Amino acid sequence: MSSRKNFGSDNVTPMAPEVLAALVEANHEPLHSYGDDPYTARLTQRLCEVFETAVVAYPVTTGTAANALALSVLTPPYGALYCHETAHIATDECGAPEFYTGGAKLIRLSGAHGKLHPGDIGAQVEFARSMGVHHVVPASVSVTQATEWGAVYTIPEITAITAAAHAHGLPVHMDGARFANAVAHLGVSAADCTWRAGIDALSFGATKNGAMAAEAVVFFDPARAHEFEVRRKRAGHLWSKMRFLSAQLLAYLDNDLWLRHGRHANSLAAALSAGLASLPGAELAAPTQANEVFVSLPEAVIAGLERDGFEFYRWPAPPGIAGPVIRLVTSFDMRPADVDGLLGAARRHAGVTS
Amino acid sequence: MSSRKNFGSDNVTPMAPEVLAALVEANHEPLHSYGDDPYTARLTQRLCEVFETAVVAYPVTTGTAANALALSVLTPPYGALYCHETAHIATDECGAPEFYTGGAKLIRLSGAHGKLHPGDIGAQVEFARSMGVHHVVPASVSVTQATEWGAVYTIPEITAITAAAHAHGLPVHMDGARFANAVAHLGVSAADCTWRAGIDALSFGATKNGAMAAEAVVFFDPARAHEFEVRRKRAGHLWSKMRFLSAQLLAYLDNDLWLRHGRHANSLAAALSAGLASLPGAELAAPTQANEVFVSLPEAVIAGLERDGFEFYRWPAPPGIAGPVIRLVTSFDMRPADVDGLLGAARRHAGVTS
Amino acid sequence: MSSRKNFGSDNVTPMAPEVLAALVEANHEPLHSYGDDPYTARLTQRLCEVFETAVVAYPVTTGTAANALALSVLTPPYGALYCHETAHIATDECGAPEFYTGGAKLIRLSGAHGKLHPGDIGAQVEFARSMGVHHVVPASVSVTQATEWGAVYTIPEITAITAAAHAHGLPVHMDGARFANAVAHLGVSAADCTWRAGIDALSFGATKNGAMAAEAVVFFDPARAHEFEVRRKRAGHLWSKMRFLSAQLLAYLDNDLWLRHGRHANSLAAALSAGLASLPGAELAAPTQANEVFVSLPEAVIAGLERDGFEFYRWPAPPGIAGPVIRLVTSFDMRPADVDGLLGAARRHAGVTS
Amino acid sequence: MSSRKNFGSDNVTPMAPEVLAALVEANHEPLHSYGDDPYTARLTQRLCEVFETAVVAYPVTTGTAANALALSVLTPPYGALYCHETAHIATDECGAPEFYTGGAKLIRLSGAHGKLHPGDIGAQVEFARSMGVHHVVPASVSVTQATEWGAVYTIPEITAITAAAHAHGLPVHMDGARFANAVAHLGVSAADCTWRAGIDALSFGATKNGAMAAEAVVFFDPARAHEFEVRRKRAGHLWSKMRFLSAQLLAYLDNDLWLRHGRHANSLAAALSAGLASLPGAELAAPTQANEVFVSLPEAVIAGLERDGFEFYRWPAPPGIAGPVIRLVTSFDMRPADVDGLLGAARRHAGVTS
Repeated sequence: MSSRKNFGSDNVTPMAPEVLAALVEANHEPLHSYGDDPYTARLTQRLCEVFETAVVAYPVTTGTAANALALSVLTPPYGALYCHETAHIATDECGAPEFYTGGAKLIRLSGAHGKLHPGDIGAQVEFARSMGVHHVVPASVSVTQATEWGAVYTIPEITAITAAAHAHGLPVHMDGARFANAVAHLGVSAADCTWRAGIDALSFGATKNGAMAAEAVVFFDPARAHEFEVRRKRAGHLWSKMRFLSAQLLAYLDNDLWLRHGRHANSLAAALSAGLASLPGAELAAPTQANEVFVSLPEAVIAGLERDGFEFYRWPAPPGIAGPVIRLVTSFDMRPADVDGLLGAARRHAGVTS
Repeated sequence: MSSRKNFGSDNVTPMAPEVLAALVEANHEPLHSYGDDPYTARLTQRLCEVFETAVVAYPVTTGTAANALALSVLTPPYGALYCHETAHIATDECGAPEFYTGGAKLIRLSGAHGKLHPGDIGAQVEFARSMGVHHVVPASVSVTQATEWGAVYTIPEITAITAAAHAHGLPVHMDGARFANAVAHLGVSAADCTWRAGIDALSFGATKNGAMAAEAVVFFDPARAHEFEVRRKRAGHLWSKMRFLSAQLLAYLDNDLWLRHGRHANSLAAALSAGLASLPGAELAAPTQANEVFVSLPEAVIAGLERDGFEFYRWPAPPGIAGPVIRLVTSFDMRPADVDGLLGAARRHAGVTS
Repeated sequence: MSSRKNFGSDNVTPMAPEVLAALVEANHEPLHSYGDDPYTARLTQRLCEVFETAVVAYPVTTGTAANALALSVLTPPYGALYCHETAHIATDECGAPEFYTGGAKLIRLSGAHGKLHPGDIGAQVEFARSMGVHHVVPASVSVTQATEWGAVYTIPEITAITAAAHAHGLPVHMDGARFANAVAHLGVSAADCTWRAGIDALSFGATKNGAMAAEAVVFFDPARAHEFEVRRKRAGHLWSKMRFLSAQLLAYLDNDLWLRHGRHANSLAAALSAGLASLPGAELAAPTQANEVFVSLPEAVIAGLERDGFEFYRWPAPPGIAGPVIRLVTSFDMRPADVDGLLGAARRHAGVTS
Repeated sequence: MSSRKNFGSDNVTPMAPEVLAALVEANHEPLHSYGDDPYTARLTQRLCEVFETAVVAYPVTTGTAANALALSVLTPPYGALYCHETAHIATDECGAPEFYTGGAKLIRLSGAHGKLHPGDIGAQVEFARSMGVHHVVPASVSVTQATEWGAVYTIPEITAITAAAHAHGLPVHMDGARFANAVAHLGVSAADCTWRAGIDALSFGATKNGAMAAEAVVFFDPARAHEFEVRRKRAGHLWSKMRFLSAQLLAYLDNDLWLRHGRHANSLAAALSAGLASLPGAELAAPTQANEVFVSLPEAVIAGLERDGFEFYRWPAPPGIAGPVIRLVTSFDMRPADVDGLLGAARRHAGVTS
């Protein structure tokens, strides 16, 4: 079996065997629709256990839906939503947050490696308030964990941001499309890096890490639960055969599959990162802390890999990094041999004899 | 094995074995995401064959998403959308069409058995135009096939409506959540009862009739295709692992599974309808032409069935029908014995010795 | 000076001399913008006096803006707004409530002379709640005073509606485009027929009754005041030179100009109504209680008046009224001679020798 | 009469006597409503003359309404709208463009003195298109003339931007809140600096420069005229007594009042700018080309002026300018003595003996 050459994204993956098995298992008999089924009930229970608190949680199909629906509950149409300038919600969701909120404004802030500075939140709120009704009203903050640059916020970093937001009454949403990778990197509990650090709502991603199409929106404060349910229906994101969404997530949580997958992909990324960084002329564009490697390589190496059929994206270079940058993503279903295959080719194109 | 007692809806069903098998089959290797995969390519091809013309078609997850997205392409925010007062889009989708169109107004028209009168469309457009900028602008028409009362528009009926709409430049959308049942009843081709009868866009339902969660939005005029793709992404309805949506629909189309399912459910509904209508005091509230039976029964019979554990909905009685009305829905996975079980119980409660 | 022949609408009028004088008076010096001026401060004070309670009030330019902005504060995007099927917000504002609320659904109820039945509100809410997340969420009620058929709700009628609405937690908005005419007819205080009867928010009309372009949105509960201010700005309805809006409304309130105008127009309408109703073949389509006359007349009379150059609208006949119906509107600036002119012509066309 | 001390904004001004006279003149008799009046007809004619081409033009009340309505016709909900990061539409309109477009995304670009770089437009479009459906769709460009920093685009600068935009099919809107000041500075015709330079739609401001509350949205391509009319109504921006909006604009155009006002305010700003720039420690933060002066002054001078009762805003310093910056605005109704008053005080606080 030849080694895998697609490092383009973790969303090119199939579903994990455990997830598929759960679909098979859930396919036996008629069940009440729209979430009034035992799978969905058990899922809420499991998420309460995983997060060690009473959460309300809603399965949806895509990360964009999870983010936009969560944000629509936290942000009025006339609100300002503060996020990083590279955030998926700002650049990759075709205006979904604007659509779901009814026209809220995303204020894009900068910061190294995709991380917000807590101080910028207060400064923005102060500016907005000085403008009175002429400016959108500070409403919410969204952080991405792991970030779009493959970095992971530490718990103190998260806490500093939520403290700055809460000081102005702003709830904080976490886009956890790669939450498992972040938790695996931090080595802490899911509770520690979310609500105990001040997070109010989480998009708990599963699709990239083993599910077919499943994410859970988790609210740590149940007050707006009904509004979420109504908005989900109104957006066409309420499955009639909800069991098949819930079953995916149950399998994803069982036996810590999510964390095992996260650790696996992270370790492959670490190996990939170390191997590439050691090449002549290579420079990491961001620390490799999750399952994404951003690295500047000589053009000849990049072009060589492309010729070899390896798939990955060229990426805009961040400030301070010269030369062409690429993004490589590892995933739960990748094997060390796949990483070795790419590293071997890269060394060859770099003229390194290993 | 005991007979099935849930006649509440066709969305309580599991997925058909063929659909599950297709998911298993599609789960082998990494594939490009967002629809750039062979399953999705093949699906478009298959739909072109099924509809005997060059269609553009987009898989989405729910009927509400299919309807609202299709309508958002056909109806500007300041538009009037004409539909039946019982239409799913008007009463059961929590305002999804308003959300997706940015606030268009649904003008609800009446008509027996859930069918629009062609003449009402012209009258409404004339009224709207007499009002100038003070009224919403006539924009689109939506019909439901089969209707919300389990009836099926004939081809001349559809043609009369599309002619009336097109005379004023209005495109016509068909909500085909139970399209298979309608086509099975009519015994014509999918082309004959859609674009050849003037339909511009179709929500081609599969979920209720055997899929896990899959519908296809089919446009018979490709002009607005790109807009649809952008709106789907923006709504969070673009699956990254699209193959798993497309594979469901491929299995649904293969070997006419959809039509076989439709015929099967229709024949069970016909048997159920005939059996119930023969009871003393029974009266059909609408003709049984698809897989739904609307029947007025003596309260004692209804209450008896409920006590027995049968599941179904009590329904508002239409004009001209006295006494309590219930809705019973058959489905692809139901057996004749299930219908016999309910009929036997109903006869017993009606005091009929069979 | 020839008699005036335009009975088409009260919005064809110029502004009252007192209102123009107020504009002249307010035009002397630089003043702070956006409402931070003495005129606006005085206006709020005056409205508190007129309504005998602490209100928050916001001047805007048009009735459509007043209604839509008020309703947007009371109705979430996923909400149901109950109103009469003839309500201006439902038929004459080009979907403004849908636009401003972000897609709420107007549920149109019937009732004689443009009046809602209190019982319908409870029935609708019950239906909506039985539907769970599949139906829009009951959110608000809007009544029109005087109604679109020129009738005036009595205080007990208003109270019954607000009680029915409040029993389900729904606030009640009053579209008072012709509020002065209604209050003049009722002969009660502005407080008695609004907040003391349970009204939560009022569009206090002035444009049709003497202003240039000015309405005030009055909230009897100040809780949502800030949200209104933000929404007004966001909609482009915050005048920088606000004094010129406030000055109009101050002049309108001074010396009860609004009520004197309302009484004047009402008395002309009463005379017009009595005169027309006495013609052979005439039948009033609604009681004349404000400044609008809806009357069925022989076609020959209507056509004759049109030939004479009189302006008015032909109107859809309500249930129970045969023959062509017209609407005639009187206004603050009309003289008895104008009414006599039309009546004389009508008698002539009816073959009546007076 | 004491000299005027309010340099806070040109919107603190009263209306010009000519504008008030026009209101008085238009107040004589009943006239058809909603723009079917001779004043509005004449206005369109006059604007065609002023712009030397067949324009469609719509009066509205505020600059925010003019901008947001114009942009809503040019930008779909899923669109990207490119503008300067300091643009009024981006920072001072409380999200009005997002509201009116249904959630389009404003992409904020940088550039000295509030001016866009043409090259940035192409780069942004290229980036957006490389992202496919994941990014909002390039839709429109908005420039502000004069800019938010009191600078004026030259005609070649405008042409370069419109050429860059049109190369990608994007229409260009001009926010002309201070259009008169810009035209007065350029000394060219209104046509030369709009449609002849490629502008597609203009918010033609009058409120700041002499009107009570009036702006005209001017489309140089009439294709989307009807959509604009519908959107204006739907937004509550269609005056019933439209004549009073049109009459203001007619007076504003008559005898080049708008240009005379613009020249007057510009010359006062030039004098103010020169006087302040000559003070020790002073530095202009932007060239003074219209009626706004942005200047960095010693804190003691600023504080002294504040103590003296002069009104103006402190402003964020642009890159490269140290020390506190203030904005001073001149207007059509200001006299040279007012400027002299402020300059004299500033010299005194700066310790300069004149």
